[in-house]
Amino acid sequence: MSERTGRPGSLLDSVKGPRDLKALGADELPRLAAEIRDLLISSTARGGGHLGPNLGVVELTIALHRVFDSPRDNILWDTGHQAYVHKMLTGRAADFDRLRQEGGLSGYPSQAESEHDVIENSHASTALSYADGLAKAHKLRREHDRTVVAVIGDGALTGGMAWEALNNIAAHRDLPLIIVVNDNGRSYSPTIGGLASHLASLRTTQRYEDMLEFVKDNLAKVPVVGSPVYDALHGVKKGIKDVLAPQVMFEDLGLKYIGLVDGHDEQAVEAALRRARDFRRPVIVHVLTKKGFGYSFAENHDEDCFHSPSAFDPLTGEEKPKPHGWTNVFSQEIVRLAAEREDLVAITAAMLGPVGLIPFSEAYPERLYDVGIAEQHALTSAAGLALGGLHPVVALYSTFLNRAFDQLLMDVALHRLPVTVVLDRAGVTGDDGASHNGMWDLSILQVIPGLSIAVPRDEPRLRELLAEAVAVEDGPTVVRYPKGPVSTEIEAVGRLGRMDVLHAGRRSADHDVLLVCVGPMAELGVEAAALLDAQGISATVVDPRWVKPLDEEALVKAASAHKLVVVVEDNGRVGGVGDAVARVLRDAEVDVPVRTHGIPQRFLDHAKRAKILGDIGLTAQDVARQITETVARRSPDLENQPAR
Amino acid sequence: MSERTGRPGSLLDSVKGPRDLKALGADELPRLAAEIRDLLISSTARGGGHLGPNLGVVELTIALHRVFDSPRDNILWDTGHQAYVHKMLTGRAADFDRLRQEGGLSGYPSQAESEHDVIENSHASTALSYADGLAKAHKLRREHDRTVVAVIGDGALTGGMAWEALNNIAAHRDLPLIIVVNDNGRSYSPTIGGLASHLASLRTTQRYEDMLEFVKDNLAKVPVVGSPVYDALHGVKKGIKDVLAPQVMFEDLGLKYIGLVDGHDEQAVEAALRRARDFRRPVIVHVLTKKGFGYSFAENHDEDCFHSPSAFDPLTGEEKPKPHGWTNVFSQEIVRLAAEREDLVAITAAMLGPVGLIPFSEAYPERLYDVGIAEQHALTSAAGLALGGLHPVVALYSTFLNRAFDQLLMDVALHRLPVTVVLDRAGVTGDDGASHNGMWDLSILQVIPGLSIAVPRDEPRLRELLAEAVAVEDGPTVVRYPKGPVSTEIEAVGRLGRMDVLHAGRRSADHDVLLVCVGPMAELGVEAAALLDAQGISATVVDPRWVKPLDEEALVKAASAHKLVVVVEDNGRVGGVGDAVARVLRDAEVDVPVRTHGIPQRFLDHAKRAKILGDIGLTAQDVARQITETVARRSPDLENQPAR
Repeated sequence: MSERTGRPGSLLDSVKGPRDLKALGADELPRLAAEIRDLLISSTARGGGHLGPNLGVVELTIALHRVFDSPRDNILWDTGHQAYVHKMLTGRAADFDRLRQEGGLSGYPSQAESEHDVIENSHASTALSYADGLAKAHKLRREHDRTVVAVIGDGALTGGMAWEALNNIAAHRDLPLIIVVNDNGRSYSPTIGGLASHLASLRTTQRYEDMLEFVKDNLAKVPVVGSPVYDALHGVKKGIKDVLAPQVMFEDLGLKYIGLVDGHDEQAVEAALRRARDFRRPVIVHVLTKKGFGYSFAENHDEDCFHSPSAFDPLTGEEKPKPHGWTNVFSQEIVRLAAEREDLVAITAAMLGPVGLIPFSEAYPERLYDVGIAEQHALTSAAGLALGGLHPVVALYSTFLNRAFDQLLMDVALHRLPVTVVLDRAGVTGDDGASHNGMWDLSILQVIPGLSIAVPRDEPRLRELLAEAVAVEDGPTVVRYPKGPVSTEIEAVGRLGRMDVLHAGRRSADHDVLLVCVGPMAELGVEAAALLDAQGISATVVDPRWVKPLDEEALVKAASAHKLVVVVEDNGRVGGVGDAVARVLRDAEVDVPVRTHGIPQRFLDHAKRAKILGDIGLTAQDVARQITETVARRSPDLENQPAR
Repeated sequence: MSERTGRPGSLLDSVKGPRDLKALGADELPRLAAEIRDLLISSTARGGGHLGPNLGVVELTIALHRVFDSPRDNILWDTGHQAYVHKMLTGRAADFDRLRQEGGLSGYPSQAESEHDVIENSHASTALSYADGLAKAHKLRREHDRTVVAVIGDGALTGGMAWEALNNIAAHRDLPLIIVVNDNGRSYSPTIGGLASHLASLRTTQRYEDMLEFVKDNLAKVPVVGSPVYDALHGVKKGIKDVLAPQVMFEDLGLKYIGLVDGHDEQAVEAALRRARDFRRPVIVHVLTKKGFGYSFAENHDEDCFHSPSAFDPLTGEEKPKPHGWTNVFSQEIVRLAAEREDLVAITAAMLGPVGLIPFSEAYPERLYDVGIAEQHALTSAAGLALGGLHPVVALYSTFLNRAFDQLLMDVALHRLPVTVVLDRAGVTGDDGASHNGMWDLSILQVIPGLSIAVPRDEPRLRELLAEAVAVEDGPTVVRYPKGPVSTEIEAVGRLGRMDVLHAGRRSADHDVLLVCVGPMAELGVEAAALLDAQGISATVVDPRWVKPLDEEALVKAASAHKLVVVVEDNGRVGGVGDAVARVLRDAEVDVPVRTHGIPQRFLDHAKRAKILGDIGLTAQDVARQITETVARRSPDLENQPAR
């Protein structure tokens, strides 16, 4: 941790782009790699970030930029969070002091940052499809000298769309397209299946004897040994040597195979990539790396090799303790419910830790299914479990449910099956940028017949609504909550049908505003009501608890007693609860004006969650101010304003 | 075609369920199969249906129901349209006179029809995931004697979620789960990839010598020979004999393999299934069938072996000519546009004929990509093509876009890429039932930032809007139209911003109603306006052409000049254009009442399209009547009704 950018003699400082990197001698590269690792550690220690994956790809990334000619050649990073080293080598090392901060470097590739960044999305298993399209485009446009390189992890190969892409790439044998499989053996079990057996059919390379020690040393330690797929991939059953025997598998598919390559031997990776580049046909380069390589605290980190720590002490590897969050509440509650209900089973899509299912997996290992990065299968497999008489709870990040919309609609809801989907990281998530925000679920899920959606406002409500959700037997349910610490607890002061009343409007004269606050927006609503009160505007604040279906009778009754209805939700404004409330009132011919506060329907840049909420006007002050203005525009008599 | 159900001596009539089938002697089965084929032909000749696939699975289905004990054992039909024979053998042969008619037999499995029907959805590649869940449930509930059987076509194995399922099934070696691969070699090219090479690693069976002739006879004829994946699967390169040599591939994966089995030798299929059943672990049974088997017009049908003909003459195999439909218009227009624009490329997901891309594929073979049943890859590969400087047109059925929502959002829209998605079979489709209706697109697509959606009302507008869509360069576009013949042509009488005015309200006194009609609903709107006119209600009818983004300025101005806004759309009422119009007006503080007419948000049973539209009130009469009633309730003074 001695060398830093900005210091005299720094090699990394001298690399302003791939051209400078190519000019370095091979003997200088280990020092460069060490400087990169130092910068990775210091910059993620400050504010968190994807440390483990990036420590694992230092040599691989150096080799890629020495062999290929980016941006003329396209280098695509699947999932995107392992592109830090790529950023450092394409002129952005000095910007790492503001990694993942507002206005600073994104934690993912970004077209706005650099011409070297091709794709921005963080959802897994997409890179091969992009590569297929790009390579076809180069061919049609007769740009025959360009090469497309996709770097994909072994974990991402569990996603179905990676397979769809491989099928198609195999059908176009004339495309210069290189698939680098970054195999760090750290995907959750069951790891890659079909491809696993392909990879098991390894072809001999001239260096394979040298590889044996490395393979033996590193693969024996990984936690997924025992999965049949993993075993097949890595030859656990057959013995390392047999696995390395030549096979014709890949060439039958029209895909040349180069491997195994020691991903931390930069010169070996370069040699493999040069061979692949010169082949001018689809090639798989199988590179073995170690997540967290070169930083002992990461290498030896049990759970996930410091996959994405929040801030930590670089000298001790100690993470700052995380506050009691929504995930913890779910984590405890699902174990408690499972003790009461033998039929409860849980499903995760390669996110056992992040969604809080580790305690469940320890208490009920036979009732926990980790399906890999395979949200589609997660939902339809859940449908099968429900058909078989069980009640599955599928825990996902909100943004990743988009992958399984069709399966929730056609496989679960069409059959009215009791499946509960728990969506973590709903609403604005912040640091990870546009593709991580869970701002779509409350809109697209509205259309699913028979699906019920609960949004808890605080910890007691999460416990209560989760119990209600798993008690529903005639159709699917969703419970969604945001990232981070739980919201302040707010007790109801009354009930209106199934809705909780959190703040009663003054009964005296003017029941002006009905404020419908979705889940964690309740705190904002109660604060806004206090601000409005000071302005002489009376507000009734309700929390619907179940936002689909809404309690239509209670809602119509409440709306009829007010002159303005305002809905606040941490979801995209288009198609969310605001639109649902407005439709219910229209259908009942209650034409009281409705206003909606939610997330503007655009892709949000990364920043802290609180900062984003402030910027988009989801604060008590902003909502109260806008209500005051609306009321003022409609005064003195709110009741009979003609449409303008 | 001599034997029919209801006739004396009919074997099929005597089979009321699997028990009766099991009681038949093996020598009686060929006659039963012939009766089944007769009934398949006569019943689909009358009103259309999936003839080819069902002719191919007659012996397979007989064998399944003789070997397994449905419903105690679960038989799952992937995609579902090949379950006609299954229906006949489970007590429903007599109902085939009302196949696919309202109130009659569904063209897909239906839980309401029979306890033998487990899953209803027609979207492909799902059965293995259901099977995985069901088998796990049986195990947890200690119902160890139950077996789960999933029948899946080689085409459906191109879908990514089938791969996700295989990975998971492989990880649970103790589940009695049988995967029957119904390989009729009729999937579009490129056919199955990863699995193809698995299947290539065939193990010898005791019968393989007998199979060679059958394989040679049948596989040489199929059209996809030349696809590397197909070649690998069927040993075209290596020679049939080599392919049948033992391989350890499947056992490495924990999946036993039994094959090849002649799918038209009922006794051979029975023997294979019995072996598989007794194994009590995951097994793949690879059955070779011929689509259209036993009906020469189907066997020799060039395009798709009578995959799903409309009504035809059973004696000549001649289909009734189809009316000039939306698909034809697109089919012609895309070829015309491609002649002008070298950068236009087209993508289909195994639906080249049905979406109208055959003429394009003939004119521009190098610019057409058939990606298999792989909608996810279709969209992200399109993103890659667009990144490479081309303009891809992805033609899909509306309902199948649900599979690629995440890819359209995160891979295409996030990068603001010029990809045009053409959605055929949008709105109510009718005969095929709940899972084929395209009633979701206008809702879920609303949330995608930067996406534009055009809905043409007639043939000239489809030509015009398609041209406008492919001219958009800074983001994705969607053009959607329904199944069937094009709507009556309606010329605009004026323009309001980007909206066409189709019927001008009387300027004199009461401009009562603004009728916003989405695409093909225009005809209904103009008729309703005439009916309203007779009631003394003046209506302005507009067609927005682009429903996303709406021309907000024009809409707000028009709405302000009317006392009621009514939106009519052939999309689910939740989250569609009605909600969008209402939101635009609310945001502009124009609180004129809005009413929405669309498809009720539930799963619709199969019936003729016109009948369904009538039942759900999407007719001029119904819309006019409801408007009249609304106006009456709000009279005498529409303007100043307080909210009730």
